[in-house]
Amino acid sequence: MSLDLAVIRAAQARIGPYIKYTPVLTNEALDAARGARLHYKCENLQAAGAFKSRGACNAVFSLTDAEAAHGVVTHSSGNHAAALARAARLRGLAAHIVMPTGAPQSKVHNVASFGGRITFCEPGLTAREAACAQIAAATGAEIVPPFDDYRVMAGQGTATLELLQDVPDLDFILCPVGGGGLLCGTAVAAKALKPGLKVIGVEPALADDVAQSFRAGRRISIPTPATIADGLRTNCPGEKNFPLIQQYVDDIVTVSEEAIIAAMRELWDTLHMVIEPSAAVPYAALLEHKFVFGGRKLGLILTGGNVDLAAVPWLK
Amino acid sequence: MSLDLAVIRAAQARIGPYIKYTPVLTNEALDAARGARLHYKCENLQAAGAFKSRGACNAVFSLTDAEAAHGVVTHSSGNHAAALARAARLRGLAAHIVMPTGAPQSKVHNVASFGGRITFCEPGLTAREAACAQIAAATGAEIVPPFDDYRVMAGQGTATLELLQDVPDLDFILCPVGGGGLLCGTAVAAKALKPGLKVIGVEPALADDVAQSFRAGRRISIPTPATIADGLRTNCPGEKNFPLIQQYVDDIVTVSEEAIIAAMRELWDTLHMVIEPSAAVPYAALLEHKFVFGGRKLGLILTGGNVDLAAVPWLK
Repeated sequence: MSLDLAVIRAAQARIGPYIKYTPVLTNEALDAARGARLHYKCENLQAAGAFKSRGACNAVFSLTDAEAAHGVVTHSSGNHAAALARAARLRGLAAHIVMPTGAPQSKVHNVASFGGRITFCEPGLTAREAACAQIAAATGAEIVPPFDDYRVMAGQGTATLELLQDVPDLDFILCPVGGGGLLCGTAVAAKALKPGLKVIGVEPALADDVAQSFRAGRRISIPTPATIADGLRTNCPGEKNFPLIQQYVDDIVTVSEEAIIAAMRELWDTLHMVIEPSAAVPYAALLEHKFVFGGRKLGLILTGGNVDLAAVPWLK
Repeated sequence: MSLDLAVIRAAQARIGPYIKYTPVLTNEALDAARGARLHYKCENLQAAGAFKSRGACNAVFSLTDAEAAHGVVTHSSGNHAAALARAARLRGLAAHIVMPTGAPQSKVHNVASFGGRITFCEPGLTAREAACAQIAAATGAEIVPPFDDYRVMAGQGTATLELLQDVPDLDFILCPVGGGGLLCGTAVAAKALKPGLKVIGVEPALADDVAQSFRAGRRISIPTPATIADGLRTNCPGEKNFPLIQQYVDDIVTVSEEAIIAAMRELWDTLHMVIEPSAAVPYAALLEHKFVFGGRKLGLILTGGNVDLAAVPWLK
């Protein structure tokens, strides 16, 4: 299996009953401020509050009964964990979630609210992967990685099928980049449906593993990033993701922490959407004029809305 | 002219090009928490950030060329002022806006951003009405009141036409109450389309002029209210509004300030919508169990999203 339009269309049919067809918003004030026609795909309104429900549902409902018999397992401190726990519950499976000690209480609560069985481990990718593998070996649970997985990428690509159905004549799609799950699904879907459409990945400058790798032509690892965009703190593009990014993505640009916070505030203030810092990253690229987009028609994927309301960044 | 379904339908056709058909959202977590099936009509996503654009556009585009020749005027420190300024600009008219000294800078900025010509006056209804009448006399501008006006009520009623088109089988509609403009439009539209549907007005207990009047059977004035719900600080139901409320509304319930803040936070946190305090009032009635709604299908009008992000109430 790899990733192509047919696989993404099959994912769309599979997950339809379990996820939301989210609205695309426009805002005349923001268009005037930015000098472009902006279309916001509101995945903050997705089930469990993030696009991650798409990939998690596709993975869970792709499993054969034999593969599903012992549940699923992943390591994540964020939206993928909650989405996988929810998807597993919808199919009546156990979901084992490895979370690092010190994960925010709100994220722990979110996973628990969907019935996820939480195992805490030391922070750091090595400890997390080891704990995940150990649980998989002990229970027979199927591992569902957060991004380095074709089933997950195909599910994430369904957001772009919806976006292009609602707004067929986009010139650009802007997409936040963590490990590349959403970016690959987006780019493969978009280029298949409209080859002239440009797909731009946007990454925090503090977490620029994919931007560095894209320029170097090989996967580069960086130390664990400290960006406020907690959904994008990956330190290396996925092994399956990187070749797809090289083939289908037009550019990767990076943005400052200041721009991410300013973008988040502007979208709360004017679009009236609660979005998490990771979701503000594409709009931050417009604030920092990271590419030429004047007057064009842009789609921005607002990836999620799970944020701690007691710690809004501009009120700290 | 009075208010009936035909008038509201005519308003819908008239304002269609100038306002948004806003989405209706659902949320499985909030449904589980409240024990009801809740449908949120997102007027926080309306043009200028509130349902007020509906009534303002209907009033402005109802004017004959002769009536419109000298522009429009209103007194308001809030969403009606911005909506009227926007509607007037769309028709190429001047909009004179009387605002009280001490109005929040964000509201002043909002009105100015739509080209409204602002006149400041002393706070208090008497001074505001006097300043408004003086401008109307001096300029010939047409007065567009915020709620005590059939053109405005008809425009506000179009939100319910959309809501019932998208969700025809609602059992209840819950609607915040200030002077009764939205409530009258809502109730007249709803009862004409579905007589068995119950329309409940929800008011802050600190601004319970309409609740008191509804129980007494006559219009009662109260001192200027201090509720956090700044859109609902009216001190008497409108003269044209009150008979319609008596005829078409099933009940008016009141909610505490604490419940309004808790409702606002819960909708930001879980629905991922930035709503202003006034828009949280219907959900607050669910939190305080102000009527029997178990298991039923409810429509809640989220009236607006214009809020000062530097002064979020739970972070003060």
